[in-house]
Amino acid sequence: MEFRAESPMSSPRKYDPPDSPTSVGWTRPQVVRLADARRPFRLECGRTLAPIDVEYETYGRLSPRGDNAVLILHALSGDAHVAGWDATAEAAGRPWRLRKPGWWNGMVGPGKAIDTRRWWVVCSNVLGSCYGTTGPASIDPATGRPYGCRFPPVTVGDWVRLQARLMDHLGIRRLHAVIGGSIGGQQAMEWALRYPRRLDNCIVLASGARLSVQGLAFNMVGRHAILNDPLYAGGDYYQNGRGPDVGLAVARMLAHITYLSEPGMHRKFGRRRNAGAGGEGGFGPEYEVESYLAHQGRSFVERFDANSYLYISRAMDAYDAARWGRGDLVVACHRIRARTMIVSFSSDWLYPPRQSRELALALCRAGREVTYVDLPSDVGHDAFLVETEKVGRLVQAFLESGGPGR
Amino acid sequence: MEFRAESPMSSPRKYDPPDSPTSVGWTRPQVVRLADARRPFRLECGRTLAPIDVEYETYGRLSPRGDNAVLILHALSGDAHVAGWDATAEAAGRPWRLRKPGWWNGMVGPGKAIDTRRWWVVCSNVLGSCYGTTGPASIDPATGRPYGCRFPPVTVGDWVRLQARLMDHLGIRRLHAVIGGSIGGQQAMEWALRYPRRLDNCIVLASGARLSVQGLAFNMVGRHAILNDPLYAGGDYYQNGRGPDVGLAVARMLAHITYLSEPGMHRKFGRRRNAGAGGEGGFGPEYEVESYLAHQGRSFVERFDANSYLYISRAMDAYDAARWGRGDLVVACHRIRARTMIVSFSSDWLYPPRQSRELALALCRAGREVTYVDLPSDVGHDAFLVETEKVGRLVQAFLESGGPGR
Repeated sequence: MEFRAESPMSSPRKYDPPDSPTSVGWTRPQVVRLADARRPFRLECGRTLAPIDVEYETYGRLSPRGDNAVLILHALSGDAHVAGWDATAEAAGRPWRLRKPGWWNGMVGPGKAIDTRRWWVVCSNVLGSCYGTTGPASIDPATGRPYGCRFPPVTVGDWVRLQARLMDHLGIRRLHAVIGGSIGGQQAMEWALRYPRRLDNCIVLASGARLSVQGLAFNMVGRHAILNDPLYAGGDYYQNGRGPDVGLAVARMLAHITYLSEPGMHRKFGRRRNAGAGGEGGFGPEYEVESYLAHQGRSFVERFDANSYLYISRAMDAYDAARWGRGDLVVACHRIRARTMIVSFSSDWLYPPRQSRELALALCRAGREVTYVDLPSDVGHDAFLVETEKVGRLVQAFLESGGPGR
Repeated sequence: MEFRAESPMSSPRKYDPPDSPTSVGWTRPQVVRLADARRPFRLECGRTLAPIDVEYETYGRLSPRGDNAVLILHALSGDAHVAGWDATAEAAGRPWRLRKPGWWNGMVGPGKAIDTRRWWVVCSNVLGSCYGTTGPASIDPATGRPYGCRFPPVTVGDWVRLQARLMDHLGIRRLHAVIGGSIGGQQAMEWALRYPRRLDNCIVLASGARLSVQGLAFNMVGRHAILNDPLYAGGDYYQNGRGPDVGLAVARMLAHITYLSEPGMHRKFGRRRNAGAGGEGGFGPEYEVESYLAHQGRSFVERFDANSYLYISRAMDAYDAARWGRGDLVVACHRIRARTMIVSFSSDWLYPPRQSRELALALCRAGREVTYVDLPSDVGHDAFLVETEKVGRLVQAFLESGGPGR
């Protein structure tokens, strides 16, 4: 694999404006109905669901042969808005999109690592989320009211099957690559396991075959805070003006700590006190890290639905790639035909390097083509989002070296 | 230092009954008024507090020369009931003490590591706690109602100064040793720094000169959950029948994860599902680790006061041993005269080994006598409570080799 020191994406401006030559520009999410009463969608839990709308975005142009499609899979709190600036943000009641481009804007665009001059990029919002795809806040046709927690449980497998249905709809039989980080990485893996003949390359970032028990524990505490918030109201809070904002903020702040690392937090905040903090009691934010986390909690509540958090975190808990091998990850990996790149980050403790290494080893033992890189970073799990220069070099080279039909 | 393979405390029964020869037997907490209107206690924040009652327990017998006193310092949720069975548990409304002996029963007793045939052991409940020492749930004489969050902020320094007042009351000028783990270890350090001539030996377990920024972050999220629980009621919940139980349980469950380690949790629970868990949705406890944490949350709410949690966690945030050297830990350590033993645990990530090592190095550089041991353990921070065999060997040898007046 070749590293290019002068790669054009090595120093993208973090927030390039929509008229920048490196930006995908103004974007418009699209919504497609992929299941309805005549063609319902059967979930892994056994229940069927209809209708299902899926919100997605695409960037770049599909080649005449249709061989340049790259599917990006988003993580827990992500959405289909990967890059560029959402032209519909205000009208759609998503004001937070006015302040920031898509969540992987540093990676996706003309001349960036996932170069939209070359690749046709697509990303869809997962089932159960709250960004345009059907989820617990959607209207249940059986009652005329939001599903709330009557929404069926969803799994990573369900997400991937629905993404495959979207690819069918878009006329894509075979993907040049799938790529994702965290639970997005697990979707990438699931693609390679479930549809081995539909993709050439698979990139798994900051992920593992399954969540650790410590990860289960953190997810549980976050859900506990939501479920026991009196404003959760059994999940039927949509008509009440306010939802379980306190519980959701607690869940997010807690999860946010697991996305960072101690050394990274130490570098960023240390034990610095807020200007004006008396150090004399009171329980408000006294240290900079407290103000930072409180802000993270507040801004998450503004943009995310508590029920979606519950459903998606349960899907994250349940995923285990080894199920494809009845518990044996090596047996599972025998299914895979894609070239795979696994990238971990040295300070990630949510999906620590040993989990990525385990996955890479299993692929090796199954005789599959795999590249494994542990990138040095003190940013923690969030590195897959933040370290766009380091990640970009690897991803760009991997995408370009892996031709179609391999 | 000598290790004794056949040490009598190497396999104490975990819960030896009160009539066992290794148990300190039935215990009775004592309460003493250490501050009143005529002799108030000035806190580090500048405010004075009176009255102050302090609950403490003692085991063993003070030698005629008064040179065998060992002061134990408890951690965040601890109390003065270190060993044996509380004869007053039922009458005092502390039913949880009927089920378990004191929190360090495996370490303290006849023939155990801290051998009560030899040492006179004392432990007192810290100021601001809820186990008999004055705290936010106590009646404020100015209003006739519980202090709530009008209680003054407390610090590790305040705790140690009050413990010194207790030693004065008990006629102890000089301690053979102080010993504590976690924030109890910080109290032990503070003793060595503040009263260098009042102790011969100092044992600091699973602790550091200060809490990491990640630790600050976890504490903040726990407090946020309590403070924003609608039943917190601005801290004046004592008359309301119910307090901020949900918030307190969330804080405890979250903190509990930081007391364990991923490998330890993996060994204990793995990703095992609860018997009967459908795996088909619902947000109740599906994995064993979830049931375990929920139990930890429930039983903590039964026995701890939310305001005390806020005050003590703030004291934990604020402590920094380097203040004695104006930010320079080596300068601070020049004050110390006690022989010191620092013990860390390999899988502790709340007060990780590097923090203990930093402390030991600072003592070395200050030319002080220090022993540092990093004990291999997969139990995490809780190892100082749980690994009584390994810890006991070190503590016993250290206590016995360090004569008075060194």
